[in-house]
Amino acid sequence: MIIDCHGHYTTAPKQHEAWRQQQIEAHSKGAPAPPRPAIADDEIRDSIRNGQLRLQRERGTDLTIFSPRAAGMGHHLGDATTSEAWATACNDLIHRVCSLYPENFIGVCMLPQSPGVSPNNSLRELERCVRDHGFVGCNLNPDPSGGYWTDPPLSDPYWYPIYEKLVELDVPAMIHVSFACNPAFHTTGSHYLNGDTAAFMQLLTSDVFTRFPKLKLIIPHGGGAVPYHWGRFRGLAQALKLPLLKDHLLNNIYFDTCVYHLPGQELLAKVIPVDNILFASEMIGAVPGVDPETGHNFDDTKRYIDQLPLSAADKSKIFEGNARRVFSRLASRLKN
Amino acid sequence: MIIDCHGHYTTAPKQHEAWRQQQIEAHSKGAPAPPRPAIADDEIRDSIRNGQLRLQRERGTDLTIFSPRAAGMGHHLGDATTSEAWATACNDLIHRVCSLYPENFIGVCMLPQSPGVSPNNSLRELERCVRDHGFVGCNLNPDPSGGYWTDPPLSDPYWYPIYEKLVELDVPAMIHVSFACNPAFHTTGSHYLNGDTAAFMQLLTSDVFTRFPKLKLIIPHGGGAVPYHWGRFRGLAQALKLPLLKDHLLNNIYFDTCVYHLPGQELLAKVIPVDNILFASEMIGAVPGVDPETGHNFDDTKRYIDQLPLSAADKSKIFEGNARRVFSRLASRLKN
Repeated sequence: MIIDCHGHYTTAPKQHEAWRQQQIEAHSKGAPAPPRPAIADDEIRDSIRNGQLRLQRERGTDLTIFSPRAAGMGHHLGDATTSEAWATACNDLIHRVCSLYPENFIGVCMLPQSPGVSPNNSLRELERCVRDHGFVGCNLNPDPSGGYWTDPPLSDPYWYPIYEKLVELDVPAMIHVSFACNPAFHTTGSHYLNGDTAAFMQLLTSDVFTRFPKLKLIIPHGGGAVPYHWGRFRGLAQALKLPLLKDHLLNNIYFDTCVYHLPGQELLAKVIPVDNILFASEMIGAVPGVDPETGHNFDDTKRYIDQLPLSAADKSKIFEGNARRVFSRLASRLKN
Repeated sequence: MIIDCHGHYTTAPKQHEAWRQQQIEAHSKGAPAPPRPAIADDEIRDSIRNGQLRLQRERGTDLTIFSPRAAGMGHHLGDATTSEAWATACNDLIHRVCSLYPENFIGVCMLPQSPGVSPNNSLRELERCVRDHGFVGCNLNPDPSGGYWTDPPLSDPYWYPIYEKLVELDVPAMIHVSFACNPAFHTTGSHYLNGDTAAFMQLLTSDVFTRFPKLKLIIPHGGGAVPYHWGRFRGLAQALKLPLLKDHLLNNIYFDTCVYHLPGQELLAKVIPVDNILFASEMIGAVPGVDPETGHNFDDTKRYIDQLPLSAADKSKIFEGNARRVFSRLASRLKN
């Protein structure tokens, strides 16, 4: 089985995100949000059959761990109330996809975060999604401001309530920023990657995993700049008199394989222990085109991993075993 | 000849940075800055002989393109007036180093930037350093706020006066952020790398090099996350209907080799054309320790390049030829 641990519902029926726009417009005028639009099961089926499900079949993957569109989370828009309504709507829609295609999609939720609003506010939605919807993880935005980085770093006790709940529920979080409203950043070109690198360094300079030894965090997009600069990070940890990174962080941090060319994947597999790499593509996401150098989609990441000089056992860890271990609630959801 | 294009004066006599602290303290009280401290030539000689010059000899490099300490620029501190006094002091000190060791160091200046203050304010100091001190380039901070990214992106006409002056003087700029005052970022662990990636994407989504075809910009620290994610950037450019990156950016953008482990250097040399790679170490900088995996300093980057599967001609470009081309004013400063 091949498990893609990083997919977003980028093809949701149009009225879903249209409502979000109406909701934020209404909020800015002090008016109540309009009622949620009707979305028929057939509309969801169409959006999936012609989207992620088709690509799963074409590329030979089996299961996508599926969450709301990351750029669409927009935690900087509106306030805690609009974020809560939007997170609920997005997560419920993911649940409908997963209910229609239970063998192909398993849910991960977004959280109703807002800049400066305590993560305590997100616990109820996290618990609802895991306990009621059978979701197996969440996406945690380390910068709800959308590129101004005004919330405390992940090392701060501010975030501990989330960590406690993640451990209690035994689910991992993927650290994933959303749309950049700061014109200094391109959402998928720099803000995503910078969010990954910033989060990794916040954790490196923290005692989070001493306090929460069972916490599991995934850094997406191949870890941002981290594997490419693994020597820098090893050296910085050493200068700070911290343990070796493998002991300090790699019992708790995992990197996905959303790296869109072979040389990058080669580096990732060379530098990061195979037990810490999770297969992922973020298909129909940031980079949907065909690479003229290969004739294949940039985001068809399975092809790169197929080409790596790893043993079948190691590839099986990347494609399946590690995901089953990190998303431990998968066990009760999968038939075999 | 081996030219290290990225060195900062991290070993300056203590009274130099002590004065900076006094200057900022005085500014916050509305008091005038104290007079600049005396620094004897012998103190400068000691700081260099036991620092960068010793390492040049040990590692077998010849010339360092030398600028004030990057984290020390601190453009977010004080205001335009304190930045101007500090930039002048730092650049004059670099000039003294270069005058004492003209065969080993050639200067690059910092600019008197301040958040929200027009780059026009930096032109006089840039011109003074190039014309009067014989400096061959400058460091340009794309985020004078120190991690809040409140100034316009490098694509904005805000920065055009700097670009015009760089072209007029025929000197390149290294895009280099300074100390991060935002607790979300670790200065050398995430802010530096994120600054590189953000700047690259700002330029990718701009027409800066159509407007300034002779502009030469260096992205340090191996280009941040860029080479590791070269497929992502190629794909994003394609989705934006931009030309191939080699045509769109690589006539004007160069990457240095401040990547502190062999696998990262291998990736850089595999992905980025050899004509766009400049040897650099940023020695006695972010990562001064010895790598226990190799027994050599993390920042002894020459060792990595010596091990790359490149021809002697290509290595010569990285070590010397490209630097002579990009820092074109070097020609008049070097005997051969």
